[in-house]
Formats: sequence, structure tokens, C-alpha cells
Amino acid sequence: MTYRIEKDTMGEVKVPSDKLWGAQTERSRNNFKIGAPASMPLEIVYGFAYLKKAAAYTNNELGVLEDEKRDLIAQVCDEILEGKHDDQFPLVIWQTGSGTQSNMNVNEVVANRAHQLAGKVIGEGDKTIQPNDDVNKSQSSNDTFPTGMHIAAYKKVVETTIPGVIKLRNTLHTKSIEFKDCVKIGRTHLMDATPLTLGQEFSGYVSQLDHGLKALENTLPHLAELALGGTAVGTGLNTPEGYAELVAQYIAKFTNLPFVSAENKFEALAAHDAIVETHGALKQLAVSLNKIANDIRMMASGPRSGIGEIIIPANEPGSSIMPGKVNPTQCEALTMVCAQVMGNDVAITVGGTQGHYELNVFKPMMAANILESAQLIGDACVSFEENCASGIEPNHSVIKQLLNNSLMLVTALNTKIGYYKAAEIANTAHKNGTTLKEEAINLGYVTAEEYDEWVKPEDMIGNMK
Amino acid sequence: MTYRIEKDTMGEVKVPSDKLWGAQTERSRNNFKIGAPASMPLEIVYGFAYLKKAAAYTNNELGVLEDEKRDLIAQVCDEILEGKHDDQFPLVIWQTGSGTQSNMNVNEVVANRAHQLAGKVIGEGDKTIQPNDDVNKSQSSNDTFPTGMHIAAYKKVVETTIPGVIKLRNTLHTKSIEFKDCVKIGRTHLMDATPLTLGQEFSGYVSQLDHGLKALENTLPHLAELALGGTAVGTGLNTPEGYAELVAQYIAKFTNLPFVSAENKFEALAAHDAIVETHGALKQLAVSLNKIANDIRMMASGPRSGIGEIIIPANEPGSSIMPGKVNPTQCEALTMVCAQVMGNDVAITVGGTQGHYELNVFKPMMAANILESAQLIGDACVSFEENCASGIEPNHSVIKQLLNNSLMLVTALNTKIGYYKAAEIANTAHKNGTTLKEEAINLGYVTAEEYDEWVKPEDMIGNMK
Amino acid sequence: MTYRIEKDTMGEVKVPSDKLWGAQTERSRNNFKIGAPASMPLEIVYGFAYLKKAAAYTNNELGVLEDEKRDLIAQVCDEILEGKHDDQFPLVIWQTGSGTQSNMNVNEVVANRAHQLAGKVIGEGDKTIQPNDDVNKSQSSNDTFPTGMHIAAYKKVVETTIPGVIKLRNTLHTKSIEFKDCVKIGRTHLMDATPLTLGQEFSGYVSQLDHGLKALENTLPHLAELALGGTAVGTGLNTPEGYAELVAQYIAKFTNLPFVSAENKFEALAAHDAIVETHGALKQLAVSLNKIANDIRMMASGPRSGIGEIIIPANEPGSSIMPGKVNPTQCEALTMVCAQVMGNDVAITVGGTQGHYELNVFKPMMAANILESAQLIGDACVSFEENCASGIEPNHSVIKQLLNNSLMLVTALNTKIGYYKAAEIANTAHKNGTTLKEEAINLGYVTAEEYDEWVKPEDMIGNMK
Amino acid sequence: MTYRIEKDTMGEVKVPSDKLWGAQTERSRNNFKIGAPASMPLEIVYGFAYLKKAAAYTNNELGVLEDEKRDLIAQVCDEILEGKHDDQFPLVIWQTGSGTQSNMNVNEVVANRAHQLAGKVIGEGDKTIQPNDDVNKSQSSNDTFPTGMHIAAYKKVVETTIPGVIKLRNTLHTKSIEFKDCVKIGRTHLMDATPLTLGQEFSGYVSQLDHGLKALENTLPHLAELALGGTAVGTGLNTPEGYAELVAQYIAKFTNLPFVSAENKFEALAAHDAIVETHGALKQLAVSLNKIANDIRMMASGPRSGIGEIIIPANEPGSSIMPGKVNPTQCEALTMVCAQVMGNDVAITVGGTQGHYELNVFKPMMAANILESAQLIGDACVSFEENCASGIEPNHSVIKQLLNNSLMLVTALNTKIGYYKAAEIANTAHKNGTTLKEEAINLGYVTAEEYDEWVKPEDMIGNMK
Repeated sequence: MTYRIEKDTMGEVKVPSDKLWGAQTERSRNNFKIGAPASMPLEIVYGFAYLKKAAAYTNNELGVLEDEKRDLIAQVCDEILEGKHDDQFPLVIWQTGSGTQSNMNVNEVVANRAHQLAGKVIGEGDKTIQPNDDVNKSQSSNDTFPTGMHIAAYKKVVETTIPGVIKLRNTLHTKSIEFKDCVKIGRTHLMDATPLTLGQEFSGYVSQLDHGLKALENTLPHLAELALGGTAVGTGLNTPEGYAELVAQYIAKFTNLPFVSAENKFEALAAHDAIVETHGALKQLAVSLNKIANDIRMMASGPRSGIGEIIIPANEPGSSIMPGKVNPTQCEALTMVCAQVMGNDVAITVGGTQGHYELNVFKPMMAANILESAQLIGDACVSFEENCASGIEPNHSVIKQLLNNSLMLVTALNTKIGYYKAAEIANTAHKNGTTLKEEAINLGYVTAEEYDEWVKPEDMIGNMK
Repeated sequence: MTYRIEKDTMGEVKVPSDKLWGAQTERSRNNFKIGAPASMPLEIVYGFAYLKKAAAYTNNELGVLEDEKRDLIAQVCDEILEGKHDDQFPLVIWQTGSGTQSNMNVNEVVANRAHQLAGKVIGEGDKTIQPNDDVNKSQSSNDTFPTGMHIAAYKKVVETTIPGVIKLRNTLHTKSIEFKDCVKIGRTHLMDATPLTLGQEFSGYVSQLDHGLKALENTLPHLAELALGGTAVGTGLNTPEGYAELVAQYIAKFTNLPFVSAENKFEALAAHDAIVETHGALKQLAVSLNKIANDIRMMASGPRSGIGEIIIPANEPGSSIMPGKVNPTQCEALTMVCAQVMGNDVAITVGGTQGHYELNVFKPMMAANILESAQLIGDACVSFEENCASGIEPNHSVIKQLLNNSLMLVTALNTKIGYYKAAEIANTAHKNGTTLKEEAINLGYVTAEEYDEWVKPEDMIGNMK
Repeated sequence: MTYRIEKDTMGEVKVPSDKLWGAQTERSRNNFKIGAPASMPLEIVYGFAYLKKAAAYTNNELGVLEDEKRDLIAQVCDEILEGKHDDQFPLVIWQTGSGTQSNMNVNEVVANRAHQLAGKVIGEGDKTIQPNDDVNKSQSSNDTFPTGMHIAAYKKVVETTIPGVIKLRNTLHTKSIEFKDCVKIGRTHLMDATPLTLGQEFSGYVSQLDHGLKALENTLPHLAELALGGTAVGTGLNTPEGYAELVAQYIAKFTNLPFVSAENKFEALAAHDAIVETHGALKQLAVSLNKIANDIRMMASGPRSGIGEIIIPANEPGSSIMPGKVNPTQCEALTMVCAQVMGNDVAITVGGTQGHYELNVFKPMMAANILESAQLIGDACVSFEENCASGIEPNHSVIKQLLNNSLMLVTALNTKIGYYKAAEIANTAHKNGTTLKEEAINLGYVTAEEYDEWVKPEDMIGNMK
Repeated sequence: MTYRIEKDTMGEVKVPSDKLWGAQTERSRNNFKIGAPASMPLEIVYGFAYLKKAAAYTNNELGVLEDEKRDLIAQVCDEILEGKHDDQFPLVIWQTGSGTQSNMNVNEVVANRAHQLAGKVIGEGDKTIQPNDDVNKSQSSNDTFPTGMHIAAYKKVVETTIPGVIKLRNTLHTKSIEFKDCVKIGRTHLMDATPLTLGQEFSGYVSQLDHGLKALENTLPHLAELALGGTAVGTGLNTPEGYAELVAQYIAKFTNLPFVSAENKFEALAAHDAIVETHGALKQLAVSLNKIANDIRMMASGPRSGIGEIIIPANEPGSSIMPGKVNPTQCEALTMVCAQVMGNDVAITVGGTQGHYELNVFKPMMAANILESAQLIGDACVSFEENCASGIEPNHSVIKQLLNNSLMLVTALNTKIGYYKAAEIANTAHKNGTTLKEEAINLGYVTAEEYDEWVKPEDMIGNMK
């Protein structure tokens, strides 16, 4: 391999000749061999590309950057956003906690690539554009990284998480309507209870996801606040007048998302409560999805020795040893995702608590976790919808049989003969292995006609939507 | 001790004569000897008192309960809310997961006390009021417990948490204004950075709490949804027409809080995402408060061999062995509370995931945790405000000395001589143990006059609020 | 109420006349109004009583405390351990993070009570014994609180947790043997799988608890290490030669438990990894118990429309609205405990990470959480054993029926006709709603005789213990 | 792209011609598009390679697999272990929770590659080796995946985690000895306290890691237990006599690690408490490392306006805006890792609780988390050791100055003049901004000679190791 020499304020560093990065990226590669290489999410890099371009436009508009430099910077940023330089960002999550080296990685790649675009050879001649003085102008890692993190997380939430959850929500809603007349036994404490419709059960899932989506959307205004313009400690040192607001407008324009300049830049650097807040809502969705997936796999259990009230699609052979087995694999993938999101929530919480003075230095870890959670929830909802939820069908004969067996239909008699006598009927039938009707009549509490009139499962499902 | 005989559908039980509770409460006392007795929070009992009274009014208005029974039930509920029967609720959190026995505890106490109020002796004659058929009319544990839980949690949040946080927020805001001209060194990565004012630092804390309060308020509409009217499985079996909406209105009236009937009762019984959601916001506040308390104790560290930039009140002797020691004890109490809230969040999350079919059976545990967190945050904020935050004073001489020592003032030169030369100045001064000004001049990059004009800490603090 | 004046190094404080505590306790009561009063666990107070007595004996033996003072201190400590002064410890968990005020609470109560025992009136005359110079001699809060915490936690684990878990483990083991011939369907992914015995299922639970107990016991040597002798920062300043080892011996003698002096006192003050370690094992037990309780409630589900393979004791009416309902309430109490322990683990973990320099100041919070977890697990296991596990019975008719229905018996044919043909049989039977035997013969893969010889559930359960 | 047709029991699937995998792998690729492709850790694949080879040897030795098949299987497994087929395992973590499809991925790759090694063309002619009947002989996904998971986790812990932690531990130990005479101020509650040596401080870190390593090693016997031989539900159906023990011996031989057959296979499939247990110890190490890294960055803070007692290596420019800044970046990487491990612990805990009946279906998620944690801790310790810990140097002049300023040296007077007078001296000096000695003499409690004799920092550091 051939190398060229790159320099920073600490001296010279050898960098592979075919790479666009510079001295500080190379130092970081060597100093942080922790986990898999290039673990810093590309979404963060793209977030940087948006903001570097926006900064260049803003600096230019406010008179501190020449047109030519602006255009070169913007051109490289566009290339990055097209995915042309994905292999130029080799750094890991587990670096400096401000993400300084990933900021410099972007600065260096932009500067070197701009040098190429200007028709020069990297490493030869004065840099057309300086990584610190030009690409990073009016910026600090301390405000760029959280800005890139918010851009990346916001985009992921609105482009992946929310559409995924809505897709599943809509299918569950359709099923809820489809199953609205399918009366089945209810279960509380896992035990037989009074009836409801399968559609009502599914309406509860829809309501959970609706509330979860609302909770997630409630967090977006905080996440839309950008730190950029705070520079080193939040004061905006070395930025031109009006910079913070204008750069946020450019970012909003380039991303087509409603980003605004954070009202308080000191919070925006020193704390990442917005990440904590949004991830809290992701965790809430995980809680909801876990309940839904659990219910579905329990209702689908069997096929012959379980509950078996619904049938889910058979997508693959279920067992390497048991022939003909079908498993609720989408439920399993989804609940594993939920467990991961719950874990990620704790990682983010712990990181969020530890801002010190003017800076929180758990940024890359927090960013990586929220991006993972947002991606996994969105993807898993789509996978679950396509490969499981959309194909759910009631097993009517099983549903009917389990419904009619239930001793809890006796509850309908409470308002006629009182709780105590109703309990006596149920207890007696349970002990004798007989039917409610038999014992109700035997005990002399109701006539056969009364029983038939009063105990109708289809009348016990109320008028709840 | 003397006993009387109480009965339920399973038979007879001996109950201490001087107690108002009945058979099912006594069974629960014996069957669940887990942890300290009477651990079920009284706030839940009071929540039940509101809802039992509201149910009595609603049942009466809808024609299924006599006026006299309504009035007796309401009278006992009022007594409970006045705290007259606090010792009649001996059950623990760790009982049935629907809180059935606590519901029955309330039903039994109301019924027996009503019997007394009707001039009778408990255990003698027919019960004036039946626990199940009257007190629990149109109800199930499955909808009453979550209703009581929401009433209790909502009240705690708006009466204790929010006022406590606001009190601290306001004091920090006052301090932020008070300290607006106190220029000090900033610190990022715990290392010397560019200056800001102490007021700016505090403004970041205020912004964190403002965002946290907003996040908490965002969750209240979900928490205001009441399950009551769903009865056993969410269908509203055995409730009169119009019951759910009317009973919610009565609860809203009696509590003077904006409770509404949950749009979807199946969710309201089977999932407690509203608790997960509100507690998520409490956890976010814990994250913020942890950061604030940490900063304050680090800035107050010393008095002679630490940072020592601020002085906090000395409330008690700090050490049993080191004479004259003063410690940031309020910061410690507050951060311990934060850690507890983070733990409680996981307990609630785990409980929230495990609803099965029509019922989540982690209700008492979830209720106890959110009540604890809401109380602790509110109380700890008040304690911290009164005994620490309100007395914070800058140590101006230390602040000035540390500010002027800092090598990071060199950042002001970036826009004049570029990042690289500025770095050279700082590195040289660091190596030689000299001042920036000396080395700036020695290296020939600026004149003394230029240095004095360009490097002014008071000009480096921007115009951020 | 009447008051007397108590003094400390900061001045005078009014204390209720009838209380034994002094100035610092009273200050703490006023400065930390956070959560319920007196929340500091009494177990910690008793831990202090052991160590104060041991310190008095050690100080005396090493020549720095008079016999009379030793005896007075020991006498009060014995009274405390007898529970005579439980109402003299009014402080909360949420105080200084070193527990200084609880240490002083003990010091003050011992000093004042000793004054009484010496025939004097509290507040009159010179103190017979000084709280700091005598009761706290050769000690600091920084080494006494962790010592008290280890004593309390160790005792709780060996006296409550381990016996409780063993009690449950033994019953499950007995059941495992009792059920060793009860062949039933296995379930993987909640779906029908190949058979095993109910005894084998229970043997898995026993194995989980055996491993959990071993894991818990592995942590005890770390927990047996006592900080006492480290005093303020771990150096043992102001202790006589040989103090640390001797005082640990006295504590071991008085508690009859294998306590030793921590090899490294700096760790013992600044970190509480021993608490983290032991609680990690408690959390592992919670994980195991959660699985066991879940299985049992799923197997007991029904009685008519669930799985219904086992019958659990009916301990109380299960529902306030559904007559005759029986619920797995012990499973619910136990799993709620498990969720709490998982939450407590995070609280302890967060606290454990935050030791700074020579001291961790999350001590009371960590202590309270481990004591709660240890108590709850022990109690819940006993409750579960007595009220559920010991009464579990198989429902043989259901078990037999579900077993014989299962399509997964086809797995026995793998080694005879290969996985693919076996799968074809199962899939065909599933599609047609027929039996395996019918389709096996129809497809021409086996004869009726072969089928009967090869597919015997009782031959499919292996020889696993 | 060209395709070939592969079949499984559900029918035909098109697979890219250049891939070795078969129908079930391809189905899984299409059915689980969740997160990044190929996220299933290669370490798991390698674990499978060991066990497939061991199973082939065992099956052969027990007479159920031909020599030729054994050798072909073993040859492919060796190729996999050499990394020759890393690109043939495209599946994700978020698949079926038993990892069935990854098991089949291995079975299919081995079968197809064996076909090639036998000189045939994939897709042409009968398969030389069957994925289910040969490669998977005497196995199930349910026992192979946990076996592969244990092999992978055990190897990672002993090959990466433990050596990494030991490397750091040894350096800290060396530093502890090196710094044994460097007396410095102690700090408790972040406040000035009595002195100790820098070596003593570091000895606490060593003790933490020693205890952590012991805790981790305590968990290894459980992790060494292998599920293999349990097959579908733990009974060992379809395995030859003696299989379980022999296959474990082969795995132990091939890996050179002390693996044994799990005593109870039902636990080994249905619960993953061994993963919970080992990860609990990893979390404990994270807690310890977090404390150590925090201390070091606080002691290194400055360089001029912080604590500044130690100097850490400057590895990279610290800031993109502040010239000449050096940051504790290794501390930040390490503490971010610690936060991640704490989060992973919750994910694993949640997964661990949810085994149902005979199978826990959170296997891939649990495996991925423990592998990540084990890798990150090991790597981060090495990185921290090489780039930070090994280069730590005391800043003697700062240490001396901070030590001599401290008012807490007054503690040495406790045993001479009592706690109360000593406190008066310290308080007066604090109020007046004077020295202890001045006020001690002014107050008339000691002479100048006594002061100099009694208050010597170097005599206050005890004899603790």
C-alpha cells in the first residue's frame, strides 16, 4: 500500500494514498480499535453533509466564505449524500465522545475531495479548502455532531419508523373491522373471561399504536432543534451575526424537514434530552408492539394442542428436526427488536445523564442507539405486517368451541340473580364438569328459558368500538 | 384478639373484629406475605374512593342504584379521602396483578362502614350494602384498578411533580439572570474551553427543565383517559347505557381534573402504555436533573483543592470524622432519586410489555413505581431548591482566576490568524507554562495591542440568551 | 410538643424532648423531606448496631476506649438489635449519599441512650459518651455505612433470599420426581412439539434455580468484605494498629457470619461493586423465576378454554365481577417482583458507576434497593411455594388428549423415513385435519404396524434426568 | 443475476447461482428485512462450524453417519473456520428466535459445499449430503443455536474480554506501585478530604478489576454447559446413546476449551440464564471501568482551570475549533462502551425472562448482545491501556499545592484535641481564608510545634496497600 503524508496541529501522519481522509481521521483509526471498523452510522455522515453544505451557504451569505469555496463544499456534500464516498468514513462509534473525529473526518474528506474537484492532486500544493478554517467555519464538533445526530434521527423517525408503524397500524385496523362480528372468549389473567369480538381485541392494538405514534410525534419539536451556531460552548463564538437561524433554515430547506435553531444552545451541547425524549417514545412503541406480538403468537399457538384461535401465515419450515412445524417467527423477530429497544433506552438514558459542564460526551453512542432503534422498529413493523399481520385469519370453529365451553358466560347472570348465586353456578359446573345451564337449572336459580334468554355471548360484547 | 366471621364465595374467613375489611382482604393478607405490609400506596386507595363515589352517583343517575345506597357509599368514600380509614388497607403491592384484592378491600370497607353508618353492627344482620353487587356495581377490578391508578398518578404528577420542578426551574431562572454578567471559563470534555457566563450555564439548566416539563405535559392526555366502564374485558358488560362517559365526568368533577373516558377500553385494560408514557417523561426529567446536580457539585467542589467556582449552602456538618467539612448533600439526594427513577422506568417498561390478551397483570407494581418516581422528583426538586439552589453564589475571585489562566482564550484568534497558528500559540504556552499573550507575541503572530484587543473573554460570550 | 437543645459543630438545634436523636439527625429531618419519612431501612440501622458494638470492643481491646464506655455502647447496640429503638431512626434514604446522617443518627442515639443508662437525663450535664469521639471512634461514615450495608445485605440474602429460593426449589424438585411418568406434549415457539414428561419440564426449573443459587453464593465472598477500618478515604487514618482486622472479627462473631476485612479499603469506599455483583445474581434469579411463573400460569390457563394441563390451588375469588373465577395470582405477584428486581438492578448499576475519587455517594439508594430485592425474592418464593407450587397437580385427561392430538409425534419417523417424507405426512394431516397415522399409511410410507411400533410418545422422552 | 432452484419441505425457491446457501436461507433473507443485512455475528457461525464438525464425528463414532460424510462435513467446517465462506451467511439477528434459519443456513452451506468438494455441481444430481438428515443429524436448531452461542460467547470472553481487562489491570497495578509515594489530597463527595497516595487510589482500581475478573470467571462453568444432545425439546429424541457427552467432548477438543454437556438439557433450551449470568459479570466490569475512567478524566482535567493532578497522553487534536486542546478521549470511548454494556444487560435480561415452555426464542438477540459487550469491553480496555493508562503521569507540583491547601488535614488533630475543636479550627480558617496552622494557634488549641508534629500529610496515609 502506498501512503501520503497528511498534517494536523500535532504533526505528520501517513494516510493510505487512495483515501480522501486526512491526519485526524487516521489518528482516530489507530487510537480507537474498538469493535467493528466503520461502526459510526452513515446516517450521521449524511447528517454532516447536510449541515456542512448549509454552513457553507450561510457563511457565504453572511460574507465570510467565498462563492467558489461554498460551491466546492456543496458539491462534495452532494456527492456524499449520493453515497459516492461511503467508504471514506472508517471511524467507530467508540471514539471521542463529542464525535470530534467524525466531524474532522467529514472536514478532511470534503477538503481533499474539493481539492480534486478543483483539478488538483491530494497532498500536492496548498489545500484549496482548509478542513478547519473553511469546511468547519463557524462550527465546532460540539455543535455539529449534535446537529448531525438530530438530522439523522429525525429523518430516520419520519422516514422509517413512523411509516412502518402506520403500515402495521392500518392493517390491524382493517383486521379489526374485518373481525368485528367474530365473538370469542375473553381472557384475563390468561384465564377464561367474558366474551368480546376478535375485532375488539385488535382495536386495542390499534389504539396502542395510535397513542404511541402520537407520543412519538410529540417529541419531534424537541428533536427538530439544532445546536448549530453554538460552536464550542454554546455562545456562538466565531460565528457571524444571524448565523444560527440562517443555517437552520438552510438545513430545513435541504432536508425538507422542519428544523429550527435551538432556542438554548447551552442545553443543545451539554445535554441530549431530545434524544432521551424521542427514544422514550420509541421504547413506548416497543412496549406496545411486544404486547401485540405476544397476543398474536399465543392466539395462534397450536396447531392442535394450543389456543389456535387464529391462523398466521406459514412462511418457512419451522424446525430443522420437527417436520411440518410452523412457528410465529415474525412475532419472535419483533419481540427481539422490542427487547433491544428497551436495552438501548437504558444505554441512552445513562449517556444522557452524564453531560458535564458545557458538553455531553456520549454523543456517538446515543446517536447509534437511537438510529438502531428507529430503524429496527420501522423495519420490524413492515416485516411483521407483510409476513404475518396481513395474513391473520380467525379459526372460526376453534373460536366457537372455546367460547361456548366457557364458564364465564355466567357473568351475564350477575344483574339478574346477583354475584353470589352466579358464582355458585360456575363453581358447581367447574367441580362437576358440567355446563352452566345444567347447574343453573339444577340449583333452581333460573329456568331453561331464562338461561337461554339471558346468557347470549353475542349480547355480552357491549357497544365498544 | 377477637374475630368475626366474614364470607365470600369460597367460604368463611376470620377477620379481626376491629377491622372494617372483609373476607377477601383477609385472604389476601394471608396469601401474600411479601415485603412490608400495607405497601399498596394510599394514593391508589384514594383513587378508588373517588371512583367508587363517582360510580355510585352514576349508577344512581342511570337508575340502577337507590339514593340511599349512593349516599352511604359516597359518605364512606369521603371519609376515606379525609384519611379516616388509612389503617383499613393492609394489603401489599405484590398481590394479584389486577389489584383485585385491593378493589375488594375498598368494596369491603365501604360496605362494612356503610353498615355502621346505617346504625348497624358489622357482621350482624344482612349487609346494608353489598361489596360486589352495590359498591362494585357496573365495575370490575380490571377497570377500577387502572382508573384508580390513573387518578393517583395524574394527581401526583400535577400536584407534586410539576410544582416541584417548576419551583426549581424558577429559581434556576432567577439565578441565570442574576449571574448574567459573570464571565467564567467554559469546560468541554471536563477540559478548559472558551468562556461563557455563569448565567448562560444556568440558562441551559432552565431550558432542560422547560423541555422536560413540556414532555411531561404532553403525556397527560393519555393519562387522563380512564378505563372505567370497560368492566371485565373492555366490553362494558353489566354497565348501563351511557355509564362510561358519565362516570368519567363525575370523576373529573370530584377531582377537579380533566379526566375523560378512554376512547378504547380494550387498550385501557390490557395495556398500560399511558403509565409507560408518563414515566418516560419522568425519566427524562431525572436525566436532566442528574446533569444539573452533577454540574453544581463539580462547580462547588473544594473548597480549596477543587473547582470552587460557586458556593453552596452549608446545611449540616459534612463528615463524622473530618471536622469542618461541607458536602453537596442535596446534589447527592437528588442524583440518588434520579438513579431510582431510571430503575423504576425499567420496572415499568418490563411490566408494560407483559399484558396478555385482555389484561395486563402488572398493575400494582406499575402504579407503585410511577407514584414513587413522581413523588421523589417533586420532593427532591423542592428540597434541592430550598436547601441548595436558592443559596448558590458565585465565588468571583476563583472564577476570574480560572478564566484568565485558560489557554482556550486563543480561540478568539482563529478568525484573525487561522486555526493552525492559534494552535501553535496554545501548544507553546502549554509546553512552556507561559501565557498566551507572551507566546503570541514571541511567535510574531500578533502584537501586544492586537492581542489585547482581540482576546477579551467578555467579548467571547456571544449573544445567546 | 416540648423540645430540648442539641448542639453540633454548626450550632444549636431544637429536638423533640422524647427523642433520643441529636442535632444532626434533626437537621437531616428538616433538610431532606423527600418521600416517606423513615424510609432508611431498619436493617441498615441494625447493621450499624453490630458494627458500633464491634468497634467499641475493638477500640477497647486496642487501648483507646475505656471499659465503661465500651459496655454502655454495647448495651445500647443490643437494645437497638432487640428492636427497642426502632422509632428513633426517622431519616430517609434520600439524604447525603454517604449516609453520614444515618451514621450520626446512630451515634447520637447511642450517646443519648447511654447517658440515660448511666442514670443521667438527656441534655443535662456533660455527655457520658460523645457521638463523634466515642461512638464513632476509629470510624467515618465513609467506612461505616458500607459496612452496615454489607452486613444488612449479607444477612438478608442468607436469611431470607436463599432459604426462600431453596424452599421453592425443593418443592419443584419433589414435583419433578412426582411427575416423572407424566408424558405430555412439548411446546417450542408456543407451538406443538415433541413430547416430554411434566417431570422433565419441572427439572428444568430446578436446574435454573440451582444455577441461580450457585451464582448468588459465588458473590458472597465479595459481599463479606467490610470497609470498616478505612475511615475517611480508605487509609485508616485515626485507627489504632490492627483495628481493621480485629473489628471484622468481632462483627463476624456477633453476627455469626463469615465477614472479613476488605483487602482493599479504597475500593470498599469508592465503589460498591460487591452490591452490583450480588444484585446481579438476584436479577438472574428474577429472570429464572419469571420464566417458571410464566410457564406455570400458561399451563394452568383455562379452565376450559386455555391449555389446562395443570391445576393450581384456588386461593381466593378471582374476580370482583366474574363469579367463580380462579386466577394464577401467585404467579402474578412473583412476576411483578421479578420486574421490580430488574428495575432495581438498573438503579443499582447506575449508582455503582458514579463513584468519584475516594467515595461513592449513592450508598443509601443502593442499600435500599438490594435489601428490597433480596426480601421480595425470598418472600415471593415462599408465598409462591406455599400457595401455588406445592399444590400443583397434573390434569391427566387434558394432558393425554393434547399429547395424542399432536402432529409433532411424526418426528419419531425422521430416522426411519427421513425428514422430508415425515414432513409430508405432517403437512398432509394438518391440511386435511386427519391423523398422522392415517396419512402415513395413505402416503404409503409406513404400515399401520410400523406406525404403532415407531410412534410411541412414551419412547420419545429420552433418558434425560 | 442467475439463479438456481432449491427446495425445502414448503416448495421451490430461487437462489442466486453463486451462493452456497439453500431454500430456507433464501426464504429468511426475504422474510426478515430488518436492520442491516448479515447482522448475525460471524462468531455464531463459527460456533456452528465447531459443533457441526463435532456432531459429524460423534454421529460417525456412534455408528449413524458414514466416514465419507463425516469427512466432507468436517472439511467444510474447517473452511468456514478459516473464514473462506464468510459471505455465505447473509441472515440477520431479527429472524426466528430459535435461530432456526441460521442453523439451516449452515446446514445448507455445508451440504452444498460438500457437494462441490465431492466434485459435483450444486443443484445437479442428488445431494451428496442432506442438510437436515446428515449435517443436522442428531440435532435441532433448539440445541444447536444455544450451543453455538455458548461456544461463541465463551471464546470471546476468554480470548478478548479477559485478556483486555488483565492488560489494563496490570498497567494500573504497575502505576499503583510507581505512584506509591505520591501523597495527594483525597476527595469525598468531590470535596477536599484527608490525604492518600496516588498509588493507593490506583490500587482501588486494581482491586475493582480483580474482583470483576473473579466474578466473570465464576460465571464460566455455567457458560461451558452445552445444550447439544437435547434436540427438539431437551429429551434428546433422535440421538444415539451417549451422544450428548461425546459431542461435548469433541467440541472441547476442537476448541481447546473446557466445554461439557449441560446437566439439564431442558434448562439449556428453555432458558439462557448462563448468558444472563455471564453478561451480569460483564456489566459489573462496565460499572468498575466507568468509575475508573471517570476518576482519571476528572484528575486530568484542566490543564489550567481544572484539577490537573495527572497528565494523560495527548493523542490527537482535541477540538475542531479550539486550537491546542487535548481531551480525555480514551475515557470517553470507554465510558460510552460502559453505557452500551449497561443497556445490553437490560436487553439480555428482558430476553432471558421470556422463555416459554420448552424454548426461549430470544436467542439471536441475546447472543448478539453478549458478543458485542464482550468484544467492546476487551477492545476498549486495550485501547484505554495503550493510549491512556500506560502514559499517565502525576503532575507533582499541582498535587503538592492542592494537598497543602487543604483544610481537611485538620482531621489529624481529632485524636489530640477532639472532633469539636478540630472543626472549630477548620471552620475559622475557611471563614477567614487563612491556614489551619494560623487558626489552630490563634484559637490556642495547639502550639506551632505541636501542629507541625501532628499534622503531616505523609503520616496520614496509613498502611493500607
